[in-house]
Amino acid sequence: MMIKALVFDAYGTLYDVHSLKKACEKFFPEKGKSISIAWRKKQLEYFFQRQLMGRYRPFDELTEDALVFACKAEGVKPSQQEIKTLMDAYLELELFDEVEDVLAGCKGVQRVIFSNGSSNMIEPLVSGSQIEPHIDKIISADGVKQYKPAAPAYAYALDQLDVNRDEVLFMSSNSWDIMGAASFGFHTAWINRGRNQPDTLDIQPEKAYTDLRGILEWL
Amino acid sequence: MMIKALVFDAYGTLYDVHSLKKACEKFFPEKGKSISIAWRKKQLEYFFQRQLMGRYRPFDELTEDALVFACKAEGVKPSQQEIKTLMDAYLELELFDEVEDVLAGCKGVQRVIFSNGSSNMIEPLVSGSQIEPHIDKIISADGVKQYKPAAPAYAYALDQLDVNRDEVLFMSSNSWDIMGAASFGFHTAWINRGRNQPDTLDIQPEKAYTDLRGILEWL
Repeated sequence: MMIKALVFDAYGTLYDVHSLKKACEKFFPEKGKSISIAWRKKQLEYFFQRQLMGRYRPFDELTEDALVFACKAEGVKPSQQEIKTLMDAYLELELFDEVEDVLAGCKGVQRVIFSNGSSNMIEPLVSGSQIEPHIDKIISADGVKQYKPAAPAYAYALDQLDVNRDEVLFMSSNSWDIMGAASFGFHTAWINRGRNQPDTLDIQPEKAYTDLRGILEWL
Repeated sequence: MMIKALVFDAYGTLYDVHSLKKACEKFFPEKGKSISIAWRKKQLEYFFQRQLMGRYRPFDELTEDALVFACKAEGVKPSQQEIKTLMDAYLELELFDEVEDVLAGCKGVQRVIFSNGSSNMIEPLVSGSQIEPHIDKIISADGVKQYKPAAPAYAYALDQLDVNRDEVLFMSSNSWDIMGAASFGFHTAWINRGRNQPDTLDIQPEKAYTDLRGILEWL
């Protein structure tokens, strides 16, 4: 087996979405954590539901819908400016500790980010972070208006690369994402940062690691 | 507007899935509630995920997958017999209090159940409960192997009825289900038993009630 492209999910895999809780905490003391958790949970629900209903909406817009829901659920009323500032926090997420070193060490393969995030979220995030020199390509699901884990999303990503399906190693910390990629036929490594219990599904990732360093054995 | 068919979701809408916690509690004292909540949550995840990936699996099988996951997550090891007994509890769910009276009072319209549950789950459940005489038809998503809230599931249900799309009033307590039905073009009444906050989506049910009695105003 010859891996020619390493394809990384972004949110939760390279970047820590829970760094949003600091931004939430600034505006809503004592509620930063609960709002950021409710925000992420609703964001996931909304793109799952929209993909299922066939009603695509760009990721930045549904992320804002989810933020509005989360704030209301937690009993706070953000101003338009606060909402904008919280959405901007998505452009400055923190990298997990080992990410920069691992990416710098991956030689001789394409290093690609493939995210459900719209281009206006994912491109500024990458270009403003330390891994920018180590990323060869950024692919957004917005290009095909189909969200992972639906098969057409992974098919679109593959179309953007000059490699065969079995030359791709896909990595995600999200169980639903790694299952979708395995179902599509990519090689898969689950970056199980949360040490979560594997799902009882009839497909499974080929490998599981607790952080990205594990993937170096593929090269 | 002339409503000719009342189409009801089953789990959570007519039948209380949280009556499963008693069955769980019997085998796993102190953990009945947490296991039944984890079970339902994972069941939802699994049919969403499978529908998204295009990997259909019958509802009884994925419900058992979800139970196995939930037990493991809660640190208990059920025997095969205990799993069977818990799955059988799905065939004896309790009706919500007002359901029988409301259904008995709906005259001159078809009364239909349309569920993601497979026929071997939903038919024994209905035939063993007091509403059996008040139900004219049972439709399972298994007939088309597409789960709600995907549009082909609602389209299949409509095909089974001798009415037009705008002659259907669809009712569900599940937000994702009522949104899917509204997106498809049914009239919709959200039975918001949990008094949950409405989702911030660009589609909404036409009406919301806290129990089924509200629907009588449509007739």
